[in-house]
Amino acid sequence: MKIAVLGTGMVGNAIGSRLIELGHEVRMGSRTEANEKAIAWVTKNGKNGSTNTFANAAAFAEEIVFNCTKGVFALDVLKMAGQQNLKGKILIDVSNPLDFSNGMPPTLTISNTDSLAEQIQNLLPDTFVVKALNTMNCNLMLNPSLVTGDHNVFMSGNNDASKEKVNTLLQSVGWKDNNIIDLGDISTARGTEMLLPIWIRLWGALGTDQFNFFIQRGES
Amino acid sequence: MKIAVLGTGMVGNAIGSRLIELGHEVRMGSRTEANEKAIAWVTKNGKNGSTNTFANAAAFAEEIVFNCTKGVFALDVLKMAGQQNLKGKILIDVSNPLDFSNGMPPTLTISNTDSLAEQIQNLLPDTFVVKALNTMNCNLMLNPSLVTGDHNVFMSGNNDASKEKVNTLLQSVGWKDNNIIDLGDISTARGTEMLLPIWIRLWGALGTDQFNFFIQRGES
Repeated sequence: MKIAVLGTGMVGNAIGSRLIELGHEVRMGSRTEANEKAIAWVTKNGKNGSTNTFANAAAFAEEIVFNCTKGVFALDVLKMAGQQNLKGKILIDVSNPLDFSNGMPPTLTISNTDSLAEQIQNLLPDTFVVKALNTMNCNLMLNPSLVTGDHNVFMSGNNDASKEKVNTLLQSVGWKDNNIIDLGDISTARGTEMLLPIWIRLWGALGTDQFNFFIQRGES
Repeated sequence: MKIAVLGTGMVGNAIGSRLIELGHEVRMGSRTEANEKAIAWVTKNGKNGSTNTFANAAAFAEEIVFNCTKGVFALDVLKMAGQQNLKGKILIDVSNPLDFSNGMPPTLTISNTDSLAEQIQNLLPDTFVVKALNTMNCNLMLNPSLVTGDHNVFMSGNNDASKEKVNTLLQSVGWKDNNIIDLGDISTARGTEMLLPIWIRLWGALGTDQFNFFIQRGES
């Protein structure tokens, strides 16, 4: 499948490389046509990788676009990507509205009564925004077996058919159907974005970022 | 041990009854000396249960006081309990700053850049506030085996010796040492209080409140 990845950071790199490994064609979108980090990524990933502007990458995508930008830039980037280029497509939003401007630990720029995912959905009413994968280290997102045992990925979105397609993609990369939890509409993304503060503290307390949330629901 | 439970709601009832079951003497604190719900609880729980005002209950406690009030009332209740009656004692804060005034789902009255636990610690500088147990249904708090398999309880607090004592109490009710995660100082309670929004959505999505968070950290 032709998939766009918006963002050239660690998350975009991990997602893009893993999608290529799985046989997809991936175009990495950036502010400019020839971003250095994006070119390095293409060089590393061979013929199924390419790069261009956010708008060009969004237009390239057949059906699925990953938003892998830093949360504070996400809305600007998606404006650059262009409403028309994203129309009718699924935007998998893995970003988090983290504010590092006051150092560690970061706070959230949006939370509690709103979420970045809702703001993105409002910005792009003709796009099917599905918030997912934002609650774990980027290496685990499309490679869940890096952490053994059961653990969960959460989905939030207004369109059930789009969530079904994301579910299929997630299963294709190794997520068990039973470990994919559909929380409901896009406003449920408030809950997953608000997991970040404890995620960051767990990273410190456990001394590793190779962990993930699991909802233990076995009744005795 | 003589333990105080502040609050006569579902959480206070569950915590108080379970502590009595485990052999402790429990005094339930309320706004008045003879609150109806507290008297009903005493009647149900026999000779090791008693009730009186918040201040009297706090004074009764040898070492441990549970704050089981609704988060929006917590600071007022703790003022009524009295700084002197809580001095040098451990306050296990299981409350959450949930605001139901706009219906479901609730939002948080404090979050992101502050937490209820921090406000309580600031109010009571001579008390050892340990935030714990606020991330699960009240029946599981002191009875974790109601959910099978591993799941976690988080602790936040500024005083290591107090967290050690809470750890001992938690192990005495069935929590495995390995499943008790010390997140760090009291400010880490921001993270656990911010788990509530997803907890509430999971309750809806899963159709049960008998679940809990588990941090899966097995590396493959």
